[in-house]
This record gives sequence, C-alpha cells and structure tokens, in this order.
Amino acid sequence: MSQAKPSLLKGFRDYLPDVELTRRTMLDRVTGVFEGFGFGPLQTPAIEYSEVLLGKYGDEGEKLLYRFTDNGERDVALRYDLTVPLARIVAMYGDIPKPFRRYQVAPVWRAEKPGRGRFREFMQCDVDIIGEPSIRADAECMIVGLEVLRALEVDGVVMRVNNRKILDGMLDAVGVTEREARHAVMRAIDKLPKIGRAGVSAEIRETVGLDDAGLETLFAVLDRKIAGAADLAALTPVIGGSETGVEGIAELTELLGVLEAAGLGDQVEVDLSIARGLDYYTATIYETFLVGHEEYGSVMSGGRYDTLLGMFLKQSLPAVGISLGVDRLLAALLELELIPPRKTAADVFIALFDEEGYAEHVKLARVLREHGLRSELSLSPAKLGKQFKLAERKGYRFIMLAGPDERAAGIVNIKDLASGEQSRLALADVAEWASRFAL
Amino acid sequence: MSQAKPSLLKGFRDYLPDVELTRRTMLDRVTGVFEGFGFGPLQTPAIEYSEVLLGKYGDEGEKLLYRFTDNGERDVALRYDLTVPLARIVAMYGDIPKPFRRYQVAPVWRAEKPGRGRFREFMQCDVDIIGEPSIRADAECMIVGLEVLRALEVDGVVMRVNNRKILDGMLDAVGVTEREARHAVMRAIDKLPKIGRAGVSAEIRETVGLDDAGLETLFAVLDRKIAGAADLAALTPVIGGSETGVEGIAELTELLGVLEAAGLGDQVEVDLSIARGLDYYTATIYETFLVGHEEYGSVMSGGRYDTLLGMFLKQSLPAVGISLGVDRLLAALLELELIPPRKTAADVFIALFDEEGYAEHVKLARVLREHGLRSELSLSPAKLGKQFKLAERKGYRFIMLAGPDERAAGIVNIKDLASGEQSRLALADVAEWASRFAL
Repeated sequence: MSQAKPSLLKGFRDYLPDVELTRRTMLDRVTGVFEGFGFGPLQTPAIEYSEVLLGKYGDEGEKLLYRFTDNGERDVALRYDLTVPLARIVAMYGDIPKPFRRYQVAPVWRAEKPGRGRFREFMQCDVDIIGEPSIRADAECMIVGLEVLRALEVDGVVMRVNNRKILDGMLDAVGVTEREARHAVMRAIDKLPKIGRAGVSAEIRETVGLDDAGLETLFAVLDRKIAGAADLAALTPVIGGSETGVEGIAELTELLGVLEAAGLGDQVEVDLSIARGLDYYTATIYETFLVGHEEYGSVMSGGRYDTLLGMFLKQSLPAVGISLGVDRLLAALLELELIPPRKTAADVFIALFDEEGYAEHVKLARVLREHGLRSELSLSPAKLGKQFKLAERKGYRFIMLAGPDERAAGIVNIKDLASGEQSRLALADVAEWASRFAL
Repeated sequence: MSQAKPSLLKGFRDYLPDVELTRRTMLDRVTGVFEGFGFGPLQTPAIEYSEVLLGKYGDEGEKLLYRFTDNGERDVALRYDLTVPLARIVAMYGDIPKPFRRYQVAPVWRAEKPGRGRFREFMQCDVDIIGEPSIRADAECMIVGLEVLRALEVDGVVMRVNNRKILDGMLDAVGVTEREARHAVMRAIDKLPKIGRAGVSAEIRETVGLDDAGLETLFAVLDRKIAGAADLAALTPVIGGSETGVEGIAELTELLGVLEAAGLGDQVEVDLSIARGLDYYTATIYETFLVGHEEYGSVMSGGRYDTLLGMFLKQSLPAVGISLGVDRLLAALLELELIPPRKTAADVFIALFDEEGYAEHVKLARVLREHGLRSELSLSPAKLGKQFKLAERKGYRFIMLAGPDERAAGIVNIKDLASGEQSRLALADVAEWASRFAL
C-alpha cells in the first residue's frame, strides 16, 4: 500500500476542537439572535448549476468560481456566496410566505490568492428579508446585526452606511452612466482602504477613462462629512441634482430616521466612501467596524439588492440582507479576549486504575452526565501519572478515580485541577455534587 | 440581462426553514450527547488533494468521487466521508493528545445514481476515538450511539454487531485470502438486504470465482444464530480454526462482555451477516436498526479501522468510530412522529397597524426577546387580515398589535392563535407575560 502525504490545500483550514468549540459557541449565540428576530434556517447544496451562479458576481468574481464538469458532464460550480442560492430558492419555491426571513450559516468557496485573512473556503453567515419594500427592512437587518454584536458582548462598534443611488448620482454628475462602467467604479472605490486614493484613481482612470476633474468631483463626494439630515440635503447640488442621487439621499435620510427611532442612532454614521464590491447592490449599503480596531476590516456588511431576484424571476422583488464575517469576527474576538478559548467540551475526566473499575465508571459517568456534567472515560488503565497529564492537557477541571478499595467502600476520589485540592465523595452523593458544578 | 433557470441539481436538496429547524433541533441534541462524552468538534475543508482520498474507498467508491482540476491545476476532490479527513488530521498534527475524541457534522459528496433515500450530497455525523486499543473503545462508540438514540427518545433499537476478523476467518476457510478479493466479498455481503442471497452469490462467484461449496460454507456462517459466548465459541471449527477468525471470536466475545457490564446487553445482538461496505474496517463492525422499522436501513453504523492511519503515517494507530445517518434518521423520526415538525423559530408576530407604530414595536420586540420570546416584526402596515394570515402561515402562536389608541393608552392587543382568545395587556406587564411563555 503506497503512503499518501497528509497535506492540506493552500487557502483551506482545519478547525481543531479548541478553535471549533469557540467558533460554535459564537455561532450558537449568533443564530440565537437571528431566531429571536423570526429568521428561520436554510440550507442549500454546496454545488449548483454554473448557470445559476454566472452573471451575478462580476468578471472578477466569476474568475474565482470553483467551476468544473461533474461525472454526468454537467457544468457545475461550488457556492460562491449565500445570496444567489437564496435568490434561486425564492424563485423556485413560489409559495414561501413573504416577507421571507431566513438565515444561513455555511461555507463558500472562492479561488482567491490566499493571504493573511484571505481563504479559499470560509464561513458565511447571512440574514435576509425577501419581499419587504419598506426602508424599515434595511433598518431591521442593521438592528439584527448590532444585536448580534451586543450578544457577543462586543462594545464600541460603528456601522458606516451609504446608498448606492447616491454614488450613482455622483456618477451621473461625472458622466459615467453605462452599467458595467458604474460597477467597475464601485469595485474600485470598495478597494479604497486597501489600495488608497492613488490606486483607486488609477483603476478608475484605466477602466472607465474618467479624467482628473471627474475624479476630483468623485472624491469630493466620497470625502464629504455627513453629520445629519441637513448635510445629506446639502448633497443634492454636489451631484448635479441627479434624479437617482436625490432618491438615494431621501432613502438614506429616511433610514437614519428609522434607526434613530429604533434607538440605534449613535451606532450608525454615514460614510459616502462605502461602495461594496458586489454588483447586485442597488440602494442601502453598509459595513461595520470595531471602533479602535478598524484593522480587522468590516465584520458585518450588507445592503439592498432589489434586482437580483429578477435574474431568476420575471419581476424583481425587494431584498435586503446582512452578512457576518464569521472568521474575521472570531479572530478579533479571540485576539481582543472577548471570547475565552475553550479546550474541551467536557468537565470531568474519569481515570481508570484497573480494568475491573470500568463497569462502575460507566455508571458514574452516566450519573454525572444526567446531572449536567460532561465526562470523558479513560478506557485503558495506563499509568496514573500519564492519565492525569492527559486530563490536564485536554483542559478538564476535575479528575475522578476509584480503585478497588474505593469501590469496595462506595466512594470516589476527586481532584480539582483548578485548585489542586483533593477530596473523596460517597458515590451516593455524586449526583448532588454534579448539580453544583453543572453549566 | 439574460434570465437564468432557477434549478437544483439532481441528487441535491434544499432544506427550507421548517425542515431545517427540525434537523437542527435533532443535531443539537446529538452533539450535546457527543460533548457529554468528551468528544470535541472538528471541521475540515470540503476540498482535499485527491491523493489524500484515493485508495481508501475501493474501486466502486472511488468512481463516485467529485474529482476535478482546480484553477491552479491541482488534482482535488470533494470530501467523500469524514473518516479519511480525520486520518489526515491525526497524521498532520502529531501533538494532538491521544486518545483523541472528536466529532464532526458535515456534508459529504458522492456521485451516486440518485434514488429514493440516496443523495449526492448528504450530512454525515461521526464520532471517533483515535489511539485507544482497548475493546472498550469499540464499546464506548456503541454506548454513545445508543445514548444519542435515547436522547432523541427513540425506543426499540438494536445494534447488530460482528467482527471482520470472523468473516476473514470464514474466507480463510474457503480459500479466499487475497486482500482485494476479500474486500470484494465484504462489499457483496454488505448488499445482502438490497440484492438478496442470489445477488450476493452471483457477485461473489463473478468477482472472486468462489464455487458452490464455498458459497455454502459462507452462507452457513452468515446465517448462524449467535445468542451468546457459547455460540461464538462453537464457531471456531466452522471457520476451520483460522487464526484470524479465532482472534475475531475472542474480540467479539470480550466486546459482548463489556457491553453487558455497561448495562447495554439487551440492545446488542450478534449478526454474522453484517459486513460493512468500506475497505478500511479491520475488526468490530456494527449497524443499528429501529425495531419494527427495519425498512429505514441502518441509522447508525461503525467499527474499528486500525490500519487506515497507516496509509498516512509510518505506523498504524488504533481507531474506532460510529457514524449517524442524519437524513435517514430524521426521515424516520418525522414519519414515526418522534420529533414534532417546527414551522418557525419565533413565537410572537407583531403586526403593524400604522407606520407611526414602528418605533414602539421595536421596543416591544426587544422586551419580548429579552424575556425569552422570539418575535418577528411586521415592517409594513399592510391590511391587518393579510398580516394575520401571514402570521398563521408562518406558524406563530401569538399576534400582538398596538394601534394609535392602544399606544396612547399604553396597552397592546394579544391574540392567541392556539385558542383564538383575544386579550389586552398593559405595556408595563409585557415582560412578566413573556416570561410565562418563554422556552
């Protein structure tokens, strides 16, 4: 039998139990908030017909698709995000009651050049509302997002919000009106934190041929500080009174009012340089930053994408959503020590002194578990020192042990690894003892 | 913009929120049991180097791999099971403390011919213990499995257990000694419930050339009823005293003793016709059936695979595991009404009478959620009849509503959709009311 090299593809990750437990703890809290707002879970396949995914992510996105021919000669591709599969679902199952609120937590695949914080497989975690035109739907997603961060005990966050229509108005003002060219500009602006003003200018100059005067107008808008409704109103002449732009200004003004009414005004600010890279956004867009830790990038982003559904259906359908950057947020939470890393899922390690002790230990573990304590059974009577070391390495709090003498006396030894304290307990009292330490 | 057909690949499934909620409820209970036994969660990538997966599943399995060339010209394949990735992990991360107890819940992909209950993407849910040679490790996996079914309130299950070494002994007796030929026989026997004795005989005759006398000996072993240790001991001459076979008999006898000691003797029976299809099993093997509902097939299967790790490492490493057939079990639980289907994750639908009511409703929902009730906010003041109908279709228990008069009076209307009863409640009493209905 030839030996295979046990290696991992670049850009992919294994999550060993310590990290995965922490991630699961985080995701459980997140989905708990989602369900609290009436969002139900959805799962879709990892593989879709390529036709379903093509034409949704722009040229740059499409190049990153894991696309292949399957065993039945079908042209298929791995899921690139959770939004397009949602659009497919809504188009296929016409009888889903609307507004449809769903969440989905699932990996997506993009053949990116791997780099720091950039992976080819990563978890997405989205909530969306389909079929609700009101601006309150935009607000609802932002409220859910902020509530998630509150549930994770993350203090100091800011949502930077914008409206694509304002940027479109700005492009009207500088004469960039063609759809593809507009998308190219959005994608360039989206890279501002990464490649800076010079990089963005160069890219826009190259892709859509905008001149220096146009670029100046553009950055004048992007840089503009907006503290409230009055500043938004003052934007109208700057974008030459573009009809689309004025619509965007009105929507953003209304959204700020709704968020104010919902009591979240202080966590939201307008940032006209937020553009989002994806083609499908049509109006409200936002990103979320940890104040003082902006280096993690946006941990939660989203917006409105009213025309995407029209790519599957004959008519368009109102759609809003927010996406949580699970891995990025987890990295931030761990580094900022907002979530304690957990080593093991269990609390008690039951060491085995002699094989004859096994049956008794099975019963002991059952009692502990029934009273809320998770318990791992040692299955081989290895040297006790070795077993104790293993329990410590695995991060257990307690070690229990009953040799022949203890079993005969109906007692069990307990060592508390946190305090180093050792004690003995009658087997009859284990249930009561366990209840004291249960989660 | 051309319109894409919103279609789903054959053999793949969407899980809409009602089904997915039920599945999640089930999986949460399952992983709760796993963690109770000290198993930690693991996640591995969907895509692996083909080299990692090849040579592990036999020719028939290998044909079902979703294998393709990625954008960087690498030969890759989608995960076919969770066992081989686990073996890769153990080989790559040498410092994982052993015995290593991990569970993994994740989809796998196999390009099977889709059929009733047979899908190209399905969820696997495995627990394994690596590095524990004792037969008690085999028992531990079976105990965890039976505990899972108990936690799911499934009554009447039986684990049918066997040992590959006994089957190998039987093959020694009929002169089938070559490794590949033995695997072919195991795979044929594994199909017994599907293709019957004639089908199995034909397949074995064809693939390994066994004659009628050999087949007779073989079925004499497979058919043999084993009620206890004495029956197992009586098996030795039947398999011609094969050394491997005798080893298997000793192991199976010991395993039955351990399970008896653990108090599970009545849920386990020996079935010498259990073979398992996968090449990597080496000793204990078992399948689990719902008594009286055997038509669902095995809902939980596993065994020992001590040599698989040797395909990555220089030495072999003891390994045991059990795999839960999530979708099959879920289908059974739903059809047998052992798990109630849930329509929505939330409890209260807050209808919107007028736009001015929104801000008040946001606060109301927050109070409900803080006191444990999940609440969906209606965001548009559509006709009340329409909103009530939507709440019903979504499966909510309560509808709340506050028009301008109620808001002025500081009260809210409540309709209990279960009883049809309507009542009014002071806003100040909502918290107390919610606590009564919280989960």
